[in-house]
Amino acid sequence: MELKRKVGYEAANLIKDGDVVGLGTGSTTHYFIEKLGNRIEIEEISIMGVPTSYQSFYLAMNSKIPITTLDEHNVDIAVDGADEVDPELNLIKGGGAAHTLEKIVDESAKQFIVIVDGSKIVTELGSFPVPVEVIPHATRTVKDHLIAMGGLPTLRMAERKDGPVVTDNGNFIYDVKFDIKNPKKLETELNTIPGVVENGIFSQIVDQVIVGRDSGIEILKK
Amino acid sequence: MELKRKVGYEAANLIKDGDVVGLGTGSTTHYFIEKLGNRIEIEEISIMGVPTSYQSFYLAMNSKIPITTLDEHNVDIAVDGADEVDPELNLIKGGGAAHTLEKIVDESAKQFIVIVDGSKIVTELGSFPVPVEVIPHATRTVKDHLIAMGGLPTLRMAERKDGPVVTDNGNFIYDVKFDIKNPKKLETELNTIPGVVENGIFSQIVDQVIVGRDSGIEILKK
Amino acid sequence: MELKRKVGYEAANLIKDGDVVGLGTGSTTHYFIEKLGNRIEIEEISIMGVPTSYQSFYLAMNSKIPITTLDEHNVDIAVDGADEVDPELNLIKGGGAAHTLEKIVDESAKQFIVIVDGSKIVTELGSFPVPVEVIPHATRTVKDHLIAMGGLPTLRMAERKDGPVVTDNGNFIYDVKFDIKNPKKLETELNTIPGVVENGIFSQIVDQVIVGRDSGIEILKK
Amino acid sequence: MELKRKVGYEAANLIKDGDVVGLGTGSTTHYFIEKLGNRIEIEEISIMGVPTSYQSFYLAMNSKIPITTLDEHNVDIAVDGADEVDPELNLIKGGGAAHTLEKIVDESAKQFIVIVDGSKIVTELGSFPVPVEVIPHATRTVKDHLIAMGGLPTLRMAERKDGPVVTDNGNFIYDVKFDIKNPKKLETELNTIPGVVENGIFSQIVDQVIVGRDSGIEILKK
Repeated sequence: MELKRKVGYEAANLIKDGDVVGLGTGSTTHYFIEKLGNRIEIEEISIMGVPTSYQSFYLAMNSKIPITTLDEHNVDIAVDGADEVDPELNLIKGGGAAHTLEKIVDESAKQFIVIVDGSKIVTELGSFPVPVEVIPHATRTVKDHLIAMGGLPTLRMAERKDGPVVTDNGNFIYDVKFDIKNPKKLETELNTIPGVVENGIFSQIVDQVIVGRDSGIEILKK
Repeated sequence: MELKRKVGYEAANLIKDGDVVGLGTGSTTHYFIEKLGNRIEIEEISIMGVPTSYQSFYLAMNSKIPITTLDEHNVDIAVDGADEVDPELNLIKGGGAAHTLEKIVDESAKQFIVIVDGSKIVTELGSFPVPVEVIPHATRTVKDHLIAMGGLPTLRMAERKDGPVVTDNGNFIYDVKFDIKNPKKLETELNTIPGVVENGIFSQIVDQVIVGRDSGIEILKK
Repeated sequence: MELKRKVGYEAANLIKDGDVVGLGTGSTTHYFIEKLGNRIEIEEISIMGVPTSYQSFYLAMNSKIPITTLDEHNVDIAVDGADEVDPELNLIKGGGAAHTLEKIVDESAKQFIVIVDGSKIVTELGSFPVPVEVIPHATRTVKDHLIAMGGLPTLRMAERKDGPVVTDNGNFIYDVKFDIKNPKKLETELNTIPGVVENGIFSQIVDQVIVGRDSGIEILKK
Repeated sequence: MELKRKVGYEAANLIKDGDVVGLGTGSTTHYFIEKLGNRIEIEEISIMGVPTSYQSFYLAMNSKIPITTLDEHNVDIAVDGADEVDPELNLIKGGGAAHTLEKIVDESAKQFIVIVDGSKIVTELGSFPVPVEVIPHATRTVKDHLIAMGGLPTLRMAERKDGPVVTDNGNFIYDVKFDIKNPKKLETELNTIPGVVENGIFSQIVDQVIVGRDSGIEILKK
């Protein structure tokens, strides 16, 4: 927790007066958003936030960050977490099922910064299963495609409702174990499956990763 | 578990060849659906099921129950669980967040049968909070209404995704503690709040409740 | 058109510096929103708008009205159009299929003002069919209820897509001819039908109606 | 109309007893579905239909075709219309805004047959704009991508509701004029834009095109 707080605060200090900020989803960005709200209040800087989920929307609101949308503003800098980061700064995201809107916001940003604790740094993506968001009608046909591609898909089941997890967009999530040799290629192939809305591989769009380690903060750049 | 199985099987034995059956959602109806699939296979009876959720859809499919829709067929008999049952056979449902489609199906059925274990039988509804399904835009305004009506609303948060639980219809759930004097009146008042899609009070539509107790099965009728 | 512009402009002039404004949907509120954007630019007043549809969201954005949400702000004054207005200021709305979010916003406002041309003023509601928003699963069962209540429902078909009109909430619309004796009662009864999300009768929530006539502007108050 | 009927009937006669049939959307498949219902009644063959839209669902129901889903059954043969067909049997579809589910069903079928009148046969795709289904949050960012790719996007506006057309999946449609040199490449590139759900280019999945001409029926095969 302490490492997550550290990188969240570090990222919040990178935001400049006037920035429109993409607000990632998850437990690490939680600290980022809180700290950003804190800076707005204390420093009286003018910031607007573009949430990537209902979760970050409510958190931004509670942190008194003025909220806007991609329709109204370009994002100057997006800050988001990740489930895995490889040496080329490719990511797996989507443990929180928000990766579709996260990718829309993060990819649109002039600068995209990822904040993680050291446990998320891997030599090769794929220990964490790839979340794939799927239109409910295509649940079975997408599963067949995923298996044909060498994946091991598991439909994510909910705990506070009966049946599958439903995303903020009204869809389902497959968590898919893959042996990932080429993240970019896999990302594209997954998105060409009819019925796949978006997948959790974020290849080649990260500008900088802030890694929290017990020994301090490490910065990874492209 | 044993009591849930007992009432589930009991209800499955009430289904007659040719029936179109409403398939409730939850851990008790799970046994009902499995047993119904079993009867179809062994007795070669002709049954069709109308699911009340993605969960019961998939379970019916795995149990080899031919699936149909409300558009195509009237429901002869619906069998569903409940979170609370009062002496007048009013219910609270929605612990599984499926109560909107459950009410659509159950209310349309010629006969509606509830199956529960004895722990769900109460003298007055309201220990279990009332699930209220809400359009996301109205999250705050509905909360204000619920509080003004004397309720204590809690937005249901998810565990396998970040942020609130999203229902099969793409909406949120408030779990609302109420002091319930008149279930029918509360049910109507909740549905007149702009932004409320449906609530978990099912008043005056149950024909029969099958209660599983250690001592055996008890039947409650109107 | 000229009358619609006149009442739209009239309403825009009622807005005060600092107001959070509910932005109705349709051809009349179109003029209201444009004029409001114009006032913001010229008078440098500070206004925020809460849209009631994708349409009014985009129009507000193009008119440079800062946009916010019900989650973040209470609405001081909502301005919306109507398809019919009766002598007690009950409305039928929903010709534009936006009545669910319109009712959420309009009902929440401290003050709710309706702008119409004179053709919308009727002695009794019901020449215009009542739009009823319905969850797709309940298309047939809701139709049965509507007919049992004496209504003549027609599923609204789209022209720029195949099949039924889909609302901003992902649902269908029945346009239902009713002989309306008691608007409040009908409004409540429609909302208690399982599968009905919201209906287009707005009873007893209007504060003021601005009517455009060739002879000038007429104000109706409760 | 007469040509559409002719190819619709021709395709219906290809269906064999026991087939699970993908039911396309639009005015040409309308005749196909009607004729298929007719064959089921007269010849007492056993067919099940998998609809590709609310429209084809209701039409199948009215034509008494037993309806099933992709979850329950593999599709043996899908029959669908098209807005353009090129010499390599690549398609543009989506004039009816149903192309996402159409692609899910059509692509999954063991055999995919397209029925069109001769006016849809082109030497190169692209006179008809490519329909691109977009998550509402990404309306602006996707537009930027489309323009950067050389496209001319127009957001499809509705006529029976205010604001944009909303698809059966709750999303928007851009109709995008492209100079299309490589359909397969464009199809893939469009699907990699974050926020794009699916696009209307169907490359390399058609088995046979049945073309209705005044002179008779022409069959195109790969």
